[in-house]
Order: sequence, then C-alpha cells, then structure tokens
Amino acid sequence: MTDNKKIKVTVWNEYSDEQKTPEVKLAYPDGLHTAIADFLNRDSEITAVVSLIGDPEQGLTEQVLNNTDVLIWWAHCHHNAIQDHLVQRVVNRVQQGMGAIFLHSAHLAKPFKNLLGTSGCLGWREAKEKSHVWTVTPSHPIAHNIPMQFLLENEEMYSEPFGVPEPETTVFISWFEGGNVFRSGLAYQRDNGRIFYFQPGHETHPNYYNPVVQQIIVNAVKWARPLVPIEPRDVPWMDPLEKIGNS
Amino acid sequence: MTDNKKIKVTVWNEYSDEQKTPEVKLAYPDGLHTAIADFLNRDSEITAVVSLIGDPEQGLTEQVLNNTDVLIWWAHCHHNAIQDHLVQRVVNRVQQGMGAIFLHSAHLAKPFKNLLGTSGCLGWREAKEKSHVWTVTPSHPIAHNIPMQFLLENEEMYSEPFGVPEPETTVFISWFEGGNVFRSGLAYQRDNGRIFYFQPGHETHPNYYNPVVQQIIVNAVKWARPLVPIEPRDVPWMDPLEKIGNS
Amino acid sequence: MTDNKKIKVTVWNEYSDEQKTPEVKLAYPDGLHTAIADFLNRDSEITAVVSLIGDPEQGLTEQVLNNTDVLIWWAHCHHNAIQDHLVQRVVNRVQQGMGAIFLHSAHLAKPFKNLLGTSGCLGWREAKEKSHVWTVTPSHPIAHNIPMQFLLENEEMYSEPFGVPEPETTVFISWFEGGNVFRSGLAYQRDNGRIFYFQPGHETHPNYYNPVVQQIIVNAVKWARPLVPIEPRDVPWMDPLEKIGNS
Amino acid sequence: MTDNKKIKVTVWNEYSDEQKTPEVKLAYPDGLHTAIADFLNRDSEITAVVSLIGDPEQGLTEQVLNNTDVLIWWAHCHHNAIQDHLVQRVVNRVQQGMGAIFLHSAHLAKPFKNLLGTSGCLGWREAKEKSHVWTVTPSHPIAHNIPMQFLLENEEMYSEPFGVPEPETTVFISWFEGGNVFRSGLAYQRDNGRIFYFQPGHETHPNYYNPVVQQIIVNAVKWARPLVPIEPRDVPWMDPLEKIGNS
Repeated sequence: MTDNKKIKVTVWNEYSDEQKTPEVKLAYPDGLHTAIADFLNRDSEITAVVSLIGDPEQGLTEQVLNNTDVLIWWAHCHHNAIQDHLVQRVVNRVQQGMGAIFLHSAHLAKPFKNLLGTSGCLGWREAKEKSHVWTVTPSHPIAHNIPMQFLLENEEMYSEPFGVPEPETTVFISWFEGGNVFRSGLAYQRDNGRIFYFQPGHETHPNYYNPVVQQIIVNAVKWARPLVPIEPRDVPWMDPLEKIGNS
Repeated sequence: MTDNKKIKVTVWNEYSDEQKTPEVKLAYPDGLHTAIADFLNRDSEITAVVSLIGDPEQGLTEQVLNNTDVLIWWAHCHHNAIQDHLVQRVVNRVQQGMGAIFLHSAHLAKPFKNLLGTSGCLGWREAKEKSHVWTVTPSHPIAHNIPMQFLLENEEMYSEPFGVPEPETTVFISWFEGGNVFRSGLAYQRDNGRIFYFQPGHETHPNYYNPVVQQIIVNAVKWARPLVPIEPRDVPWMDPLEKIGNS
Repeated sequence: MTDNKKIKVTVWNEYSDEQKTPEVKLAYPDGLHTAIADFLNRDSEITAVVSLIGDPEQGLTEQVLNNTDVLIWWAHCHHNAIQDHLVQRVVNRVQQGMGAIFLHSAHLAKPFKNLLGTSGCLGWREAKEKSHVWTVTPSHPIAHNIPMQFLLENEEMYSEPFGVPEPETTVFISWFEGGNVFRSGLAYQRDNGRIFYFQPGHETHPNYYNPVVQQIIVNAVKWARPLVPIEPRDVPWMDPLEKIGNS
Repeated sequence: MTDNKKIKVTVWNEYSDEQKTPEVKLAYPDGLHTAIADFLNRDSEITAVVSLIGDPEQGLTEQVLNNTDVLIWWAHCHHNAIQDHLVQRVVNRVQQGMGAIFLHSAHLAKPFKNLLGTSGCLGWREAKEKSHVWTVTPSHPIAHNIPMQFLLENEEMYSEPFGVPEPETTVFISWFEGGNVFRSGLAYQRDNGRIFYFQPGHETHPNYYNPVVQQIIVNAVKWARPLVPIEPRDVPWMDPLEKIGNS
C-alpha cells in the first residue's frame, strides 16, 4: 500500500492537561495526541499526523482538514475556546464525508454537540475505579477482534443518562465499579460522514497504551474513512423527469 | 373512566416454577401473573386479567386476544411448548396493533423472537446479586416518574451481548454486582404494535412487588396501548392516482 | 381545559415573502404565521401566539421561549440573519424539552441544522406541480386520522437526496408530478425535545388552509409537547453507589 | 483472489412463473435465478450458485446453507409452501451471520417476515408503469457508484404503506407513474446477519438485465457478506468478574 492510499488521520488535541499537570505529563510525556498517532502509525493502512489548539487557526486550517480522512478529537478544558467558524468548518467537512472520532471528554466538544444535536451531558466521577467494557454488537466493524469484555483497571467514571441521540449502533457499554453504566461506544452517520464516540481515555489513566483500546480506535478509523469523495453537497434546482401539467 | 374505556391487559404466564419450586411459591403464592395483574388493577386506567398455558388453546384463544389491548408475557421453561399457530396468532395481533410486554426470561419466548427477528440470546448467572437499573432516556413515556437510578437487592444476572435489534429507544440499562451490564428496557415497533422488553423479574426474587418496577410496567402498558383500531392490514390492489402511459 | 393547561405554541416567522411578493400577500394577507396560529387556536387543547424576526431579539427572547411548549418555525430568505446566540438559545430549549416543528424551507434554518447535525440539503423546483403525500407509518400519533394518501394540487418540489439523519420515524413520503420523491414528514428526538419536519407549505401555494395539512400540524403539536418539565440538564458529579477499591 | 476467498452466494428461486407463463419464460428463459447468478458470477469477488424449491429439502439443506455467505431470495406464489423448519433454518443462519437479500415479491416470504417481525404488507398494481428509483443515502455501500436517480421503464407498482420496521438505512425510494411512492431499498441487521430488501424485479419486466439494478445487487452482496465467522450464539452461564456479596 503506497502512502497516498493510506487513510489520513489527524489527531487533534488541546495539549493542555499534559503540560499543566505532572501526573498527566508522566502518563503522556509527549501529549495524548502523540501516543494516539504513534499506535495508529503502526498500522499499515493508516498514516496519522497531529494538530494542536496552539497551531494556526487552532489547528483547523482548510489545509489540515483537506488532508484529513478521519479526524480524532481529544479535548477537556477549552471546548468553548474553539472559534465558531472553525467548529462550522469541522462540521461541514464531516457532513461532506470526513470521519470523526470523539474521545472521552470530547463529549462536550462543540463539533460533537453540533453534529449530534444534543447536550452531550452525563454524570461523572474521578475515583480510580475499575471499568469493564462490554461488546454489545460483536458483528460491528469497530468490534472486529475485540473480546466480549475487557477490563480497564482505572478510568474516570462516566454515567448515564448520556445526552445523545439513540445511536445508529450501540457498540460498547461500560460497567463502573461504583455502580454506574455508560454507553461507551456509539456510532452515528451525518450526511456522508461517520462519527464514533468512545469513552475511555482520561488524561491521568494511560489507557491509550492499552492494546484493546488501540485496536478499537484503529477499527474505528477504518470504519469511519470516507466511502465517497469528500465534497460539498449543493442545493440544486432539478429539472423535471416527467411532464408537468395536463395541457 | 368507565370500564369499557380502560386499557385491557392480559397477563399470560406459564405458571410452572411457582407450582414446582417452594422458593418461588413462597415469593408468588398465587403465581407471578396474579401479582402482576393485581398491581395493574390498582391503576384507574387499566383492567387486567390473566391467562395461563394450561387454559384452552394454551391461553391464547381468539377470544382472549380479541379482548386484549396489551399482552404481558412471562415464561421460562416451556418456550418451545407453545404451538406455532398460536405463536403466529400472537404475532399477527401485535402487528395489527396490540401492545406486547415481554418480561425477564421471555427473551427466549417464540413470539418475542419472531417479532424482533433475532435470537434473544444473552449471558446469565443466578447469584443473588445486586442490580442498579439506570434510566437512559428520561423523557420516554415509560420512564415517566421513574428515578434516574434504582436498586434491586437481588436479581438474576442477564448480560450483554444481548441478541436483539438496535432498539427504537434504549430506556433502561442495568448494572450487575458481578461486573456485567445489560440493556434492560428496550422499546420497539412492529407494524402498528408497540413492544417493550423489561429484564427484572426472576421467579425467586420477588421484584414485581417493587413499586418502581410496578410503575415501569404500568407506564409500559399505557405506552403500548393501541393508538389505532386493531385490525388486519390487507394487501390491496391500488388504482392509479395519475394517468399511466403516453398514448 | 383551562388556558394554562393548554399546549402553548409559538409560531415564528420571517414574515418577509408575504410583504415583498404580491402573490404571497394574496395567499397569506396577514402572514403565514397568522394563518397557522389561527387554525391551531381552533383546537381546544392548544393556544398559539406568533413571533417575528422583526420583534425584539429576533422574536426569540428568553420570555418568548419560556412561554413556549412547542415552537413552529417558518423561514425562507433570512436563515443566516439569525444571530448565533439566539440559535443556541432555541437549540438549548429544545434539548431541555421544548417541541420544535420545522416547516417547508426551514430545512435550512440554523436551529434545524444544528439539532439534526446535517446539511439539510435537498433538490428543488418551482413548477406548480401536483404532490401526493403518502402516510408511511399510519400508527404514528402524527398520522392520527390522516388518510393513507392525500393530494396537494400545487406545491414546490423538494427532492431526495435529503441531507438529514435516518429519522426515528418516517411518517410521510411525498410524490411529485415531475418524477421526484421526498421524505416529507420526519420525526426525531434530541435529549428531551421532540422535533418534526414537514415539507408542505410553499409561500405561493396556500396549503396551510388545507384541512389535512392542518390536522397533521395539530397532531405534531400534540406529539411534540413536553412530557417532562422543561429544564436544563446539568453535568453532575455522582457519588458512588458501591464501594470502590479493595482495601 | 482464489475461489475459496470469494463471497459464496446462493440464489434461491421458486422457478414457477418462468415455467408457467410464456411472457416470463421469454423474459427469463433459464429462470430468474440463472439471470441473477450470471451477472453475480461476472464479479471477480463473487461466486454464485442456484438453489430451487424443487431441490431436496426445498433447496435449503444444511449443506446448501453452510456453503452460503449471502442468500438471495426470489419468490412469488409459494411463500406458504416453505416448510417451517426450513424457514427456521434460514432465519437461524442469518442470525449467525449469513447475509440475506430479499428481492421484489419476497416481501411476503416467511424468512423475510420472521426476520423483520412485520407483515410485509404493501399496496400493488400491475400496469406497465414507469418507476424512478432515487438514491436516498448516497454514502451507503449499497449505493456505491449508483446514480442519484435511474429509470425503470416498466415495473410492477409497490406502494406505501409498507409493513416493515423503520430500517437501519433507507437506501432507495421509488416513484411510480401512477402516483405512488415506495421505500424500495432497505437495510437491516439481525444479530450478526445483514439483510437488504430491494423492490425491482417483477417477473414480466426483465429488470435484472438492467446494469444499475445489477450493480445494486452486487453492492448488496458485498455489504451483506459476513464480517465474523458464521456460528451459533449460545446462551452461556457467565462467571462473575467481580466479587458478589459483602461477607
């Protein structure tokens, strides 16, 4: 497979917690984005680059998006800092066919909320608790080679009720030690674009090094890649196919 | 509200475990069906009767079904004993608009499997374990006045992956002490009929006396009642609305 | 039914075509909004008021929305004139439980696009052509007492492919004389809010006087009314229900 | 691609109209099944065989199904002749992962009705009328390389309301000259199996020679092929992952 046939992934990150908080810096010394891009780049069908909120146009230039088949989004503290015209640019590009994977706290990212049309609200708790992730739809491409169940020793708790639309497919549901459940892997379609939300990945629990989590994100990239050329839908006048009127 | 305007519910039951197993007889001395009909009959909009596998035509005569707006089904050991023409009679009636509520082990009942088109398979364990039931879609009519979360001290464990179609609405998801999750309240539509599956209700754990469980089943009855007259759809020849051909 | 128990509808309109174009003024001398509010007010369960783009805060003050159970939106030329913070206010209110009905050219209204997450794009043609509207899901509350099929002698043509998510329910599909089809009645849910899109209602074809169209909009208002109190979801910290950790 | 990696398709047919009716025999001298298998076999990724109602076990032996990745079903007059245990065998195999494509009048085939859980009822008319087929979801794999719209000069009319569940994806909707619409391409999932219904293909209108129709069926085969090994789901006892009880 030549490089220009590979799925082009851009991993977008705030890169904030990693620089502010020693615990996070220890977990992800080069940032969450680097850890994610690294395991993606080990897959022969994927080529991943990174883009950061501190880059020009908050890392969301036309050029960046035009070179992206699937966008991965990690954000936590600065959801509201993203400029609205850049949010709209991302939303438009997804509707035109770019895949989008929103990780963990991106449930409140503006592009996620605008693409789903919901609040993204949920319950939460930081308590170093165990989470069992269950595969609800084993035949979905994102569940390919994923076990029926796997354990994350520590993860931030996210709880139902989760403010999202009923998904196209509920792929994973997570169990939390403290008594909560959460639909942790959800697939959607918006116009030509495929969207996947995946819960694991709190900044202090380095679950992006977990091989099952990595496999799920790799699978999601392959599932979300554009099936048709990414291009705007226009709003066309259509000539009639049949004669109108009786005269 | 006069009686003939009330929602007519038939609670169908195998009535087997209650007679064979002392522990179940203790929990439900008059049978699960009686316990369920009793709390339904306390609601001013509902009138409930019972029907048993030992009744004529296995409790599924034309007369029984013609007098039923919403059918509640509890079964465990004798799924395969139900005669196919009676299964088809139930399926037809649901498609014509009768509501259907399948409880607990009815996930393997023939009418449930035929209406959903899936295997109904799931994981399970009997271990007297705690279950927290979470309300996933608080605005659904079946969640009306139901808390965000409630506890069942003992329930049989049912686990994902659950062999059902992606539902119209995921209303409840349950957490189990032993580490499992289960989509425990699921809403479907088949032609004119509304269908609800609800997990709680193992024969040895008398959860049908739990007021929240009772409220959910009452809500489900009101949601599943027919909105249009129950009648067969035929397959009609349709005359053209517009002229066909150019001559 | 006392007035304060009635469903409070606000009919929002641009009120632009009616003032600019003689043909539209002739069809709707007091504006589309007035025609719609008038037939809604003839229903004993509904009380309807109007709100216009020229009103304070473009007719979308907090007070207006706080007094609205179901918002009806008609717009055509000025979609992009609506200020973003007012769009967000509408979107938030729908997510909190306010119903929303988007009519005809509102398929490009910002709140519609933000709630659905899609482009709203479609094909179109103005050619005074006949449209047969087919009831696809006769048991849906919005189809209550609506015939299997009805004719609009003249309607603007809207065509597939329509840039919307797969709906919760496809209620109506329209046939157009010139050879096109269009999913003309679509139901969605976003958090607590119910949303209905309905295609008929071009400004020059006075189909809001059609009694079947009126009945559909009345039905949609009743279906979309809030089932739970309209209030913000917050993002709560949740205390654990079960003990965390083994020590 | 070696033959044993190809997608194994079985085209099942009643082969009744073709032998009884001269007009049908003229259109499909070797049967509809042969015409369909022929164009499938021209695709390098597919190998297709045929199976007929007159074959042993009505063409549905264990051996036939065990050698089938995707089953195509054409039937018209003899739906009720299929033995129930063979219907169940097909249903089970689909739930285990075999793809299934139901063509035209197979909307009343028993496996179709049992997998969908609905009546399959619809309106119909034989009038040699024109049908425009519209692509509603252009990004779906079954719509790959299919134009936005194509014309069938003659097709039997099928009309809404169509007694099927709201689909996972509405891929195509058809317009008929006489004023009707029909959801003519619908995608579903049942356990591990993918199901596609496609309307064109009346026995007297040889539309299976139409290259766009052929491309759609080829696309559907590729979409419906099993993604995981075809095997039964069992109903397992699951050991607890976490300690149960406080003692």
